[in-house]
Amino acid sequence: MKLKMMYSFLNSDINIIEKALEDTVHGESPLLQEASLHLLQAGGKRIRPVFVLLAGKFGNYDIHVIKEVAVALELIHMASLVHDDVIDDADLRRGRPTIKNKWDNRFAMYSGDYIFAKALELMTKIENPIAHKILANTIVELSIGEIEQIKDKYRFEQNLRDYLLRIKRKTALLIAASCQLGAVAAGVDESLHRKLYRFGYFVGMSFQITDDILDFTGTEKELGKPAGGDLFQGNITLPVLFAMEDEKLRSEIVKVHEAMSQAEINSIISLIKQSNAIERSVEISNRYLDKALKVLEDLPNNRAKRTLQDIALYIGKRKF
Amino acid sequence: MKLKMMYSFLNSDINIIEKALEDTVHGESPLLQEASLHLLQAGGKRIRPVFVLLAGKFGNYDIHVIKEVAVALELIHMASLVHDDVIDDADLRRGRPTIKNKWDNRFAMYSGDYIFAKALELMTKIENPIAHKILANTIVELSIGEIEQIKDKYRFEQNLRDYLLRIKRKTALLIAASCQLGAVAAGVDESLHRKLYRFGYFVGMSFQITDDILDFTGTEKELGKPAGGDLFQGNITLPVLFAMEDEKLRSEIVKVHEAMSQAEINSIISLIKQSNAIERSVEISNRYLDKALKVLEDLPNNRAKRTLQDIALYIGKRKF
Repeated sequence: MKLKMMYSFLNSDINIIEKALEDTVHGESPLLQEASLHLLQAGGKRIRPVFVLLAGKFGNYDIHVIKEVAVALELIHMASLVHDDVIDDADLRRGRPTIKNKWDNRFAMYSGDYIFAKALELMTKIENPIAHKILANTIVELSIGEIEQIKDKYRFEQNLRDYLLRIKRKTALLIAASCQLGAVAAGVDESLHRKLYRFGYFVGMSFQITDDILDFTGTEKELGKPAGGDLFQGNITLPVLFAMEDEKLRSEIVKVHEAMSQAEINSIISLIKQSNAIERSVEISNRYLDKALKVLEDLPNNRAKRTLQDIALYIGKRKF
Repeated sequence: MKLKMMYSFLNSDINIIEKALEDTVHGESPLLQEASLHLLQAGGKRIRPVFVLLAGKFGNYDIHVIKEVAVALELIHMASLVHDDVIDDADLRRGRPTIKNKWDNRFAMYSGDYIFAKALELMTKIENPIAHKILANTIVELSIGEIEQIKDKYRFEQNLRDYLLRIKRKTALLIAASCQLGAVAAGVDESLHRKLYRFGYFVGMSFQITDDILDFTGTEKELGKPAGGDLFQGNITLPVLFAMEDEKLRSEIVKVHEAMSQAEINSIISLIKQSNAIERSVEISNRYLDKALKVLEDLPNNRAKRTLQDIALYIGKRKF
């Protein structure tokens, strides 16, 4: 079953959110509007809004309240992507950046700031102070994760703990916050919204590990970019860490650098795929999924719970 | 009288804020801590925290509550400076950026994100929803101002309205918000915190116009950089707009571009200084100050009010 089919009963609310996303960036600055719409129309799984809505189903679900949270979280995710792209963009035009290029980067940075600010503005419609505390803490961790990711690039001595902390900050906490904030906005009590947070955290960890696996196993067509891009950019992900436990493989991997040819990268990717690194990474991903499903057992039975189960199971099997 | 002397009765509270600023960035990431401390220790007028404290004096002043707002606003100001510097840094090393340079910029962008996130975290200690709405609206405007500033660079056809809207967004609204939020955090009633907002807005406009004048009239020693830097970078400020009303001067000014020599810039600066553009800019600045002082008349008489008057009068006369 496709992901979107799993939550088709939310379709009309997801359309409201798509509309609200567009409305949010409408009108204030033609330049910003154009850039933000371009970003929005590029799509995405909208997985964070879906989690917000599903979590909201455990309480007093009012789409006109909950949509503010759903839109805010998608915008925060988008803003972080925009900032991630700022320097990647510069990398593509290495050596001789044009003025145009620099302006684009500056524009991208400020666009990210703007999209983020709009998210905060929406969140002020939720008056429960707990919601703001959860969000602020998440954003602090997210920004530390961004910095740590730079620091850890091409740092081949890092360990499993470094990796897990990094993906927790970069991905899992925002998904956890999506689940928790959807519940908080629907007036769910603390013990329940904390469970939804834990579910989101475990699913988020598995989601990112799966992403990191797909970067090796996916085809260029599925990924929309050549495989192995993470390693090429110096991101030491779980399959790489496992592969490096083999001394021979390790000696190849530590040679990776920015100016390497695609052919050289491809041969290292093949070696990693032939090792047991992928299999072991899948195993870790599945362990997080099991924990996520375990948390769900305690939740009241309803359609939202069954959908969260479906999504968790899907994440472990997804191909892109 | 020096600026700091005017609010010397706040010294012990300002020390608390300096300490809180350092504590805020302490401990989470060694890299971030180092960068943020560097920035903090570079100093600054701390004019936003001073406005927060003074505005708080009109209500139930509790330094342990009000300091959160004061620190948050200084951090937001700092975060915006860090993002402003990202691309300026790149300009200095034009043509052939090193990896180090690019990493610095990326690091600067993420540091800005982090400092901003920490500000939001502090603000969640203020539970009044009005405070969050004021802050979010201010941040949205600030980010639009950043973008508009890029768009308006070297755009010589802009008018007074474009300029005033830009400095409103880039500077005045954050100072206005400092005054208003200090009051809100001290439980001041709406009519009073709105007046403090208006005072801050008018003072902020005058503050920025004065800054823009000093960029022409200040010495390199006073400014810490060569005069005319704004024009050189394509920022069309109030003196430039007035100067361009003279056709002969206009024809010189529109020649300004990024690759111009300092000598060529200097000769244009001399022409602007010889015109009536500076005088007319001072006049506009003073008009905003008069409005600020007018707003103050309606406020209850106390030491904070007298200090706000002193600061407003100082801003019109400051030399750096």
